[in-house]
Amino acid sequence: MPDNQTSTAGSSQADTKDPIRPIMLAIAGDSGTGKTTITAGLVEALGRDRITSVAADDYHRYDREERKSLPFTPLNPKCNYMDIMQQDYQLLRARQPILKPIYNHDTGTLDRPEYIEPADFVIVEGLLPLHTEESRASFDITVFLDPPEEIRIAWKLGRDTKKRGYTEDEVRADLKKREPESEEFIRPQRSHADIVVRFAPIKDRGETADDPLSATLLLRPTISHPDLPAILGEDTAEAMHVALIRDDDGKPVDAVHIHSYADPEVAKKAEQAIWEELGLDTPVPDSLGLLDGEKRDDPLALTQLILLYHLIQARQRVTEKISNANS
Amino acid sequence: MPDNQTSTAGSSQADTKDPIRPIMLAIAGDSGTGKTTITAGLVEALGRDRITSVAADDYHRYDREERKSLPFTPLNPKCNYMDIMQQDYQLLRARQPILKPIYNHDTGTLDRPEYIEPADFVIVEGLLPLHTEESRASFDITVFLDPPEEIRIAWKLGRDTKKRGYTEDEVRADLKKREPESEEFIRPQRSHADIVVRFAPIKDRGETADDPLSATLLLRPTISHPDLPAILGEDTAEAMHVALIRDDDGKPVDAVHIHSYADPEVAKKAEQAIWEELGLDTPVPDSLGLLDGEKRDDPLALTQLILLYHLIQARQRVTEKISNANS
Repeated sequence: MPDNQTSTAGSSQADTKDPIRPIMLAIAGDSGTGKTTITAGLVEALGRDRITSVAADDYHRYDREERKSLPFTPLNPKCNYMDIMQQDYQLLRARQPILKPIYNHDTGTLDRPEYIEPADFVIVEGLLPLHTEESRASFDITVFLDPPEEIRIAWKLGRDTKKRGYTEDEVRADLKKREPESEEFIRPQRSHADIVVRFAPIKDRGETADDPLSATLLLRPTISHPDLPAILGEDTAEAMHVALIRDDDGKPVDAVHIHSYADPEVAKKAEQAIWEELGLDTPVPDSLGLLDGEKRDDPLALTQLILLYHLIQARQRVTEKISNANS
Repeated sequence: MPDNQTSTAGSSQADTKDPIRPIMLAIAGDSGTGKTTITAGLVEALGRDRITSVAADDYHRYDREERKSLPFTPLNPKCNYMDIMQQDYQLLRARQPILKPIYNHDTGTLDRPEYIEPADFVIVEGLLPLHTEESRASFDITVFLDPPEEIRIAWKLGRDTKKRGYTEDEVRADLKKREPESEEFIRPQRSHADIVVRFAPIKDRGETADDPLSATLLLRPTISHPDLPAILGEDTAEAMHVALIRDDDGKPVDAVHIHSYADPEVAKKAEQAIWEELGLDTPVPDSLGLLDGEKRDDPLALTQLILLYHLIQARQRVTEKISNANS
C-alpha cells in the first residue's frame, strides 16, 4: 500500500443503515443515585429496539481481585479506560459499531466483550461519562444525578444488600473508602451537565426519606429546553412549576420543582401537556415512573418525560437538518 | 452539550507521545503459513518495546463452542468482527490505544480484552487483514504468505499435533472443511499484497519438503522496494538474485530468488549489503532467520531482512516528512 492518510472510519456497512446519527444521552452519577432506574423507564418508553444502553462501568481497567491491591477505587479515572470509553462514544455517535468491554458485577471479572451497534438513541449511564471534555463532546444531552447524600446511602444500602449480596457494614465501609474520590471525580461532573436531577424530601413540608420523594430539575441554558412556563398552566402548578434561581455557584438556572404530594390527576395533566408539545400521535408511554418495575412514582415519571422530550426533540432536529440538506 | 459534530479522536493523551505515527505492516496468510515465525524474528530485531504485534485472529466473533453449530469456519469474514478490526487498525495508525479482544487458542474462548498502545511499529498477522479495502488502507506494507499447499499442510500438521494437542486426522479433517473458504477468502488476498512470500523446495534441483526451503519473494511496484539489482552484486547471486517475471495473472513483477543451498558466507554478504543501505550504525540483528528460536535459516533471515528494511525505511520517510514540515 502506498502511504495513505485517508480515514476510512465510515465503513460501507454503515452506509446502508439509517442515515440519521444516534442521539446521545449521558446520565452520570455516583453509585446508588438511580441511574439504572431512570434509564430503564426511558428504554421501555422508546422501545428496546430503538435504544442502546451502555454502562460506563464496563470500562473498568482492573477486575475486583486486582483492585484489592490498588490505592484507588472504580470512581477514579485511573481505574478506567477513559480513552477507550471516549473512542467508543465517538464511534457510536458516528453510527459505528463497537466491541464494548464487559464488567461483570456478579463475579467482579472482565468478561468477553459485546458487539453493539447503535440504535436511534444511545444512553450511557455510569460514574464518569462527563469527566473529560472529549467524552462530553459526544453527547447531545448530559444529565447528572444529585440526590442528597442520606438518600443515596439509603438507596445504595437497599440495592447492595438485597441485590448484590453485601452486608450493611461492607457497604458503609466501601462508601467511606470511596468518599475522597467521589468528591474529587464524581461530584465535579455536576457542573458539566445540561440537567441536574435531585430527588429529595421537601424538608419545609416535614417530608422524610421514607416519604415519596419530590424532584428538582435544574435546566441549564446549555441546551434548548421545552418552554415549561408556557406549557404548564397555573392548573398544573401543584404538580410541577418552574422558578428562576441561582445555583450553588451563583449562576442563574431554571429550577423545575416536581411535587410528590400532588394529586396524581394533576401530575397526569402536566405530563400530557409536555408530551403534546412533541406533536406525536401516540399516547404518553406508560412505562414512565415505574419504581422497580412496579410502583408508579409521578416525580420519576415527569423527570423521565423531560429526558424523553429531549431525546425525541433532538432526533427531530437532526432529521430536519438532513431533510433540509437534501431538499 | 450543544449539537457538536467535532471529532475528538486525537485525544490529549496522544499529544504527549512520540509525534511520529506507527509504521503498519500486515502479514496475511492461511493457517500454518509461517506468520508467527516471520513475525517473531522481526519483533526481536526491532526490540520488543518498539513493536506492537497484533493477531488478527483475536477478532473472532464466536468462540469454539459456538462455531460447532455454524456453517462457516474462522476463515470466513462472517466469523470475524471485520468492522471492529478495521477501526482498531485505523486507531493504531492514528497513535491511539485500543482495547483488543482476545481469542484464546488453548481454550477456544473469547477472553478479557487487552489494552494496547501502538509502539513505533505495528505488525498485524492473521487470516484476513487484507480482505477489505478499509483494512488494507491502514497498512504501509502488506505481505501475503503463499507456500505450496503440501508445505503448508506439513507445517500445520507439525504445529497442531505438537503444540495444540490435535491428532493428525483432526487436522486433516479441519483442512478439508476449511478448503472452500481458503479459496474464497484467504487466497484472494494474495493479489492485494505488496510482497508475496513463497517458501518452497526448488524442484528443478531435486529438493523436497524435507530439505531446507528456498524462498521466492514477489515485490510488486505498489510500494518502493530497495534497489536489489544495484545492491546485490554478482558475487552474492548464489544466495539471492532478482529476475523480472510475469506473475500468474500476467502482471510484471520482480521475483527475488533466495537459495537455501547457498554458502552461508555468501548469504551473510547479501544480508550485509542490504542492511548497509539503511545507513544505520548498528550491526545486522542476529535474531533474523531463527526457526523455532533455535536453528538458523538463511532464506528466512533474508526474507525477514527485506521486511525489516521496509519497516525501517518507512519510518525514516515519515520522520523526514515531519522534520521537513517543521523546518
